Amino acid sequence: MAYFPDAPEYTKLSDHKEGMDNFSLRKVLSDPKRFDEFSVFLDGVLFDFSKHLITADIKYDLMSLARSMNVEDMRDAMLRGEKINNTEERAVLHTALRAPKDASVLVDGENVIPFVHQVLDQMKLFSDAVRSGAHTGYTGKPITDIVNIGIGGSDLGPRFVVDALVDFCSGPKVHFVSNVDGHDISSALAKLSPETTLFIIASKTFTTEETMLNAAVAKQWFLKTAPVDAIAKHFVALSTNKDDVLKFGILEKNMFPFRDWVGGRYSLWSAIGLSISLAVGFDNFRALLDGAHAMDDHFENTPIDKNIPVIMALLGVWYVNFWNYPAHLLLAYDARLAKIAKFTQQMDMESNGKAVDRDGNIVDYATGPVIFGEPGTDSQHSFMQLVHQSPTPIPADFIICKKPSHHLKDNHNCLMANFLAQTRALAIGQTLDEAESDTSRVFTGNRPTTSIILPELTPYTLGLLIAAYEHKVFVQGVIWNLNSYDQPGVELGKKLAKPLRSAIETKKIDPSFDGSTKGLLDFLTK
Amino acid sequence: MAYFPDAPEYTKLSDHKEGMDNFSLRKVLSDPKRFDEFSVFLDGVLFDFSKHLITADIKYDLMSLARSMNVEDMRDAMLRGEKINNTEERAVLHTALRAPKDASVLVDGENVIPFVHQVLDQMKLFSDAVRSGAHTGYTGKPITDIVNIGIGGSDLGPRFVVDALVDFCSGPKVHFVSNVDGHDISSALAKLSPETTLFIIASKTFTTEETMLNAAVAKQWFLKTAPVDAIAKHFVALSTNKDDVLKFGILEKNMFPFRDWVGGRYSLWSAIGLSISLAVGFDNFRALLDGAHAMDDHFENTPIDKNIPVIMALLGVWYVNFWNYPAHLLLAYDARLAKIAKFTQQMDMESNGKAVDRDGNIVDYATGPVIFGEPGTDSQHSFMQLVHQSPTPIPADFIICKKPSHHLKDNHNCLMANFLAQTRALAIGQTLDEAESDTSRVFTGNRPTTSIILPELTPYTLGLLIAAYEHKVFVQGVIWNLNSYDQPGVELGKKLAKPLRSAIETKKIDPSFDGSTKGLLDFLTK
Repeated sequence: MAYFPDAPEYTKLSDHKEGMDNFSLRKVLSDPKRFDEFSVFLDGVLFDFSKHLITADIKYDLMSLARSMNVEDMRDAMLRGEKINNTEERAVLHTALRAPKDASVLVDGENVIPFVHQVLDQMKLFSDAVRSGAHTGYTGKPITDIVNIGIGGSDLGPRFVVDALVDFCSGPKVHFVSNVDGHDISSALAKLSPETTLFIIASKTFTTEETMLNAAVAKQWFLKTAPVDAIAKHFVALSTNKDDVLKFGILEKNMFPFRDWVGGRYSLWSAIGLSISLAVGFDNFRALLDGAHAMDDHFENTPIDKNIPVIMALLGVWYVNFWNYPAHLLLAYDARLAKIAKFTQQMDMESNGKAVDRDGNIVDYATGPVIFGEPGTDSQHSFMQLVHQSPTPIPADFIICKKPSHHLKDNHNCLMANFLAQTRALAIGQTLDEAESDTSRVFTGNRPTTSIILPELTPYTLGLLIAAYEHKVFVQGVIWNLNSYDQPGVELGKKLAKPLRSAIETKKIDPSFDGSTKGLLDFLTK
Repeated sequence: MAYFPDAPEYTKLSDHKEGMDNFSLRKVLSDPKRFDEFSVFLDGVLFDFSKHLITADIKYDLMSLARSMNVEDMRDAMLRGEKINNTEERAVLHTALRAPKDASVLVDGENVIPFVHQVLDQMKLFSDAVRSGAHTGYTGKPITDIVNIGIGGSDLGPRFVVDALVDFCSGPKVHFVSNVDGHDISSALAKLSPETTLFIIASKTFTTEETMLNAAVAKQWFLKTAPVDAIAKHFVALSTNKDDVLKFGILEKNMFPFRDWVGGRYSLWSAIGLSISLAVGFDNFRALLDGAHAMDDHFENTPIDKNIPVIMALLGVWYVNFWNYPAHLLLAYDARLAKIAKFTQQMDMESNGKAVDRDGNIVDYATGPVIFGEPGTDSQHSFMQLVHQSPTPIPADFIICKKPSHHLKDNHNCLMANFLAQTRALAIGQTLDEAESDTSRVFTGNRPTTSIILPELTPYTLGLLIAAYEHKVFVQGVIWNLNSYDQPGVELGKKLAKPLRSAIETKKIDPSFDGSTKGLLDFLTK
């Protein structure tokens, strides 16, 4: 069963959708049992799915669809280490990165868990040394600043997590440089001193063009004042390309490896998370892994009708394929989670933003939605107007922490009230009567949302939350029959950039370029 | 002609769309004349529209549609000061804020230009005093930090511009606090000293709940060490509510007013821009206004087929209504413009994310798209996979500066090459042959983009660029027959938050709340 519109539940769900003209969230939410029926708790984190355009029957058929599409088998295959990344013939094992020491996951006959923990030990040692001041800069001063140079998965995960865990940041200040735009690295370096700065070069192959250009700029900047042998104390690599890492001047013991079964957008749990461990300390990094592992465990062992990532995924499929809702909104009512949408954009859109299925067929159904979001309450004074009123609804996840890390009670009460008010307004809308006959203030309501409440924002709850989104994306990929773990779009961009860079450098315009490119090139280089 | 599907051009355009199955950007871009035909320059800024799914005929019919929908008349009515914000009975005159001193725009018989320039003079005086050190804190020290407390339009515009003009920032460091989430203000204050910090409270009515809560926190923090009469030196207001401003302890001369014909999302040009003027100096702020005025002038006086905002708007309508493309992407290949999508999201989605037209009818056509974006090249390693390959294309604007403010030539060449490569890849795709028969690497191409090249990023070019988007949104609002200048969605959220805040504070749950809200409230307050 690989073509999901052929699944028997597809027709059933289409029929359900047809019959929903009179479905009213306002009405069904008056049922006092609905909240209990449609909400799930895990380790004190609440996921409320009751404000969705579903009935018990629809939920049942969505679950059947998941079974028809072999979601459970595929999940087990992934967790077992099978090579489900079929185009690249790789296993997909970010779950192994957060497994306990006594676990066993075989890849090509090798249990990879000892390797995982060996790298974790290496990360702990190094983090402890830098944070305690045992590892100093070349003039003996402690490291005060860290610059993580990486792009895509080598940047977005650590950047989001370090930002989110601001209350746990007790180590050096971490800066992130990703863009090849020279304004990025030059503004970062302007604030720093070579004596007290440590650079992390995060590139599995140590050949990523943007990252290596920025690494070269950092090295040049460093060597303006420091001697060459000081590189060993100020540069580390998250990479597996030993030759090039050593050539750069980095010591082998400061090279933190990871395997080919860690995809970039799922890599913050690997050596790529070194900046996190340096910022918040290794114990907190371990707690992040533990939270993710708790979600892995839930995902593996909970029946799918109470399985958080499965429910999230199926609701997404319900809206994307049966309601034709093309976007999905992430709204964290927490300034610390400001980058969650930026992070999830990559994880989701790069995984499932595809048009060719696992069997090489062009799909004729919608795949991944556009993911976007900014923090609430800010968004209420920005794009929420469209979310409340535009003809095409946008399903949304609302996220909040029950207990903040500050003591501003009025602020937090106001925040919670707005969190509740927005999901309520989206669900129930405002009738013409309630709008006092002003049609411009009529809201249809029936706009679906998930509410997620963390008891508080800790490494553990954050890990659990991120893993929920990872598995959601996996389940959707299975239903859409996509390989969620390759990224041919990135390759295409690289391939086309090469001759253009050469044209810029030589000022020779290839006659085979298209007319627009020629015109732009001419303007940029003249 | 208010219902645009009734316009004769609507049928013509629908027919064009039907006939485009064989339209190929790869093919039309081989025409060497196309670039000249479809690109427009203004003050050295290039807008290239040649990579769009249009022919000369389609462009002609789009222009006729604009004429049928009275775009030119409505434009002139707006610029003349007519009350085109019909639900609130207000003029819409952000263009007056950047008009020269000798201009004349009448609102209710009063020429508003002298008032505009009087406030500009007040802003100049104050900015000069703070920046020169003539205005000091209460202990005689110069102001080193400014905290702008505002939300929505009182935050997003200045935040984006101050960030973008980083190379011109020569004054105190500006921090922005918007979210009522207490983590926002508490993390901002943690870095500051009361002796050297100036607070700007930006709220037209001085009653915006989020802003006033944060202002109260700031005041309390300030008064922990400073005497009450020091408030006069450390707090200023961007507001028109004199009574409450004075009550807060702010001097009348430090109250910077603006009129009701300045909508929040179009207000960075008004007193709301004070933080910009403090950061970059008044002369640069004036240059920003001048750039916007140049675009106003172009918008007013250029025939619509060469009129940049009109072309941008009609292309958007073409994709939203005839191709059913629901999103629009903004990609700045410049780290300094990182917040352009966040800013434009409000301007566009709050303006046209509406379902009720000017005549009070529920519309049955799509209105504003979802706007999103992050900087390139980062995005290439993130969500661009979906943009290249997903079944539903997403039109995009690509923005770059020819001349950077740094000297990292390799970085800039790589950036330019990627900028060109992405738009080229989106346009021409990759055939099965070019993909060496690997279907997973087939790209359909035919994905439309606009390329915008600024000679360099200055206050002037930035002002011009922002004004282009403002007028684009205006033109689309006219075609969709919307009032782009109210925001009923914001009001609905406020209305529903009130009883919820009271329920949180009293722990008394109103039995009329829906079941989900009750469950969430219970969890949040127990």
